[in-house]
Amino acid sequence: MLDLTDTAAFDARLRAKIDGKTKPVGSLGRIEDLAAQIARLQRSLAPRMDTCALTIFAADHGIAAAGVSAYPQAVTREMVRNFLAGGAASTVFAATLGVTVRVVDAGVAGDPLPDAALLSRRIAPGTASFLDGPAMTCAQCDAALAEGRALGGETPMDAAAFGEMGIANTAAAAAVAHKLTGLPLAILTGRGTGLDDAGLRRKIDVLTRAAARTATALSPEAVLAEYGGFEIAMMAGAMIGAAEAGKLVLVDGFIATVAALVAIRLAPGIPPALVFAHVSHEAGHRPLLDRMEVRPLLSLDMRLGEGTGALLAWPLARAAAAMLRDMASFESAGVSRA
Amino acid sequence: MLDLTDTAAFDARLRAKIDGKTKPVGSLGRIEDLAAQIARLQRSLAPRMDTCALTIFAADHGIAAAGVSAYPQAVTREMVRNFLAGGAASTVFAATLGVTVRVVDAGVAGDPLPDAALLSRRIAPGTASFLDGPAMTCAQCDAALAEGRALGGETPMDAAAFGEMGIANTAAAAAVAHKLTGLPLAILTGRGTGLDDAGLRRKIDVLTRAAARTATALSPEAVLAEYGGFEIAMMAGAMIGAAEAGKLVLVDGFIATVAALVAIRLAPGIPPALVFAHVSHEAGHRPLLDRMEVRPLLSLDMRLGEGTGALLAWPLARAAAAMLRDMASFESAGVSRA
Repeated sequence: MLDLTDTAAFDARLRAKIDGKTKPVGSLGRIEDLAAQIARLQRSLAPRMDTCALTIFAADHGIAAAGVSAYPQAVTREMVRNFLAGGAASTVFAATLGVTVRVVDAGVAGDPLPDAALLSRRIAPGTASFLDGPAMTCAQCDAALAEGRALGGETPMDAAAFGEMGIANTAAAAAVAHKLTGLPLAILTGRGTGLDDAGLRRKIDVLTRAAARTATALSPEAVLAEYGGFEIAMMAGAMIGAAEAGKLVLVDGFIATVAALVAIRLAPGIPPALVFAHVSHEAGHRPLLDRMEVRPLLSLDMRLGEGTGALLAWPLARAAAAMLRDMASFESAGVSRA
Repeated sequence: MLDLTDTAAFDARLRAKIDGKTKPVGSLGRIEDLAAQIARLQRSLAPRMDTCALTIFAADHGIAAAGVSAYPQAVTREMVRNFLAGGAASTVFAATLGVTVRVVDAGVAGDPLPDAALLSRRIAPGTASFLDGPAMTCAQCDAALAEGRALGGETPMDAAAFGEMGIANTAAAAAVAHKLTGLPLAILTGRGTGLDDAGLRRKIDVLTRAAARTATALSPEAVLAEYGGFEIAMMAGAMIGAAEAGKLVLVDGFIATVAALVAIRLAPGIPPALVFAHVSHEAGHRPLLDRMEVRPLLSLDMRLGEGTGALLAWPLARAAAAMLRDMASFESAGVSRA
């Protein structure tokens, strides 16, 4: 009987099972690595990866008033309606992949959106501008993390993909990443939804002034409260909750990776649950992934967010688990070895 | 009314439709390119990409006797049984993706395999060794191409993925690619299923001697007959047949790319139907893709063949078509523009 608490013994059995499948050793490359990750996460040599839910967190950002986005703030609210109607890229992708979708209002500006399908976890109608002071209070930050953690932990699915919507949230994410990693803002700041050169220069200038407002060394909670967004904080909490519940967490693009960075700082034990789905075309994503020493699965020049990249990694996770669970071995199939 | 025969008008409408979707322009990167390719192929602004079939061609190679593979020739036959039983990587992947599978005996060594589920298109029980003479006769090559073309054209699916199985077929593929492109054998020859350094040197030596046997400039048919395999020829034919029937063709790894190269030389109009699914870890694949000036979608360090890489691109094609067909526009969803 395999002792599942003995990691070395488990890993040896896992390696032997993968290498005994009817294929040259190592020939499924990163799918084999993903299968091993899923097996370890589920403590099973026959893991299941049959169901996935996408949770999209939406919130607004006070910093949008500083002109750091190509789109007006109203788009956050409009896109929430689009998610609920199934007309957005992420919801269309999810439909083709059999992934269920939850949409969470983490703090969209204006009055609450009256829609029974929308999960209301509103912290406030948008953050304050972090150019002048903290984006949110410590209590708001704690509440967002806690709401997220609960949402992340309660999914019955095998995998949890997370997406976000929030005009100006690449600015918030760049500021958080800068404060947590020390990477320069000039590297972390990108065009977001489509800033031109002048807009990009303005965004970097705004972020530089905002970053100078606080000390260089802050706790993860303090960085999140000073520069984050409600959707970023709630996603970070949700990643922790899902990871602690043993779910595979599919990390989307730049903003989701910043949420994952926060989550890892707050809960250093979660990386075994995290899959970095893709590298975004948003400028800061690749250097941030490199700094975190993680390697994304996909590189498709996407930069939309909403969980679109995370969703496209879901079939890879399914295939990986199925490989380990369902593929024949050389012995069971009567195939000769090299 | 849109004139579907006017390519410029169609492309303008297509571009406008993609750019009018509720996302920043260009933010879905290669998924947008894929959507445009599918739309042009189907001459539709609302293309469908709902069904896919994987066809696996299996055949044996006389050159295996020269010791160019890490596995014994019997594995081809054993793996055909494994495909039919659903225990191989490709059949397991296909099951998770809802892709139907056909297995074709294009010329497996030994007696015909008695299995009603196996499509028998046997040209001969394996090719002759191309070290000493042509791998097949012109008549055999024609027959393989024609059988493939028929199989490729008769699929009722929206997309056709092709895979192969044939011990020593990376050697045949390298020889064909060398003769068709002029790329050096030292670049095109890889470890296949897992040759060690000495095995790789022997493989390059065998291929160098075999290549010296014929003139440098040969027709595609002659190259295929001299150095190809029945599964490679049949796959090339199937790609032509599927492309001519308006199907999206998902091209797998090194051997499938060589089949695609042959197919393009024989039918120069088919590239609009071809999607290069992934870049294999097999050494010759990347330089061959570069020479063909095509860019694969995925890079997952895989090198198994069987259509495993092609299958993993199928969800991307589905998502791309669904994006174009089902996503809301800024107008329809009432979302503000930048």
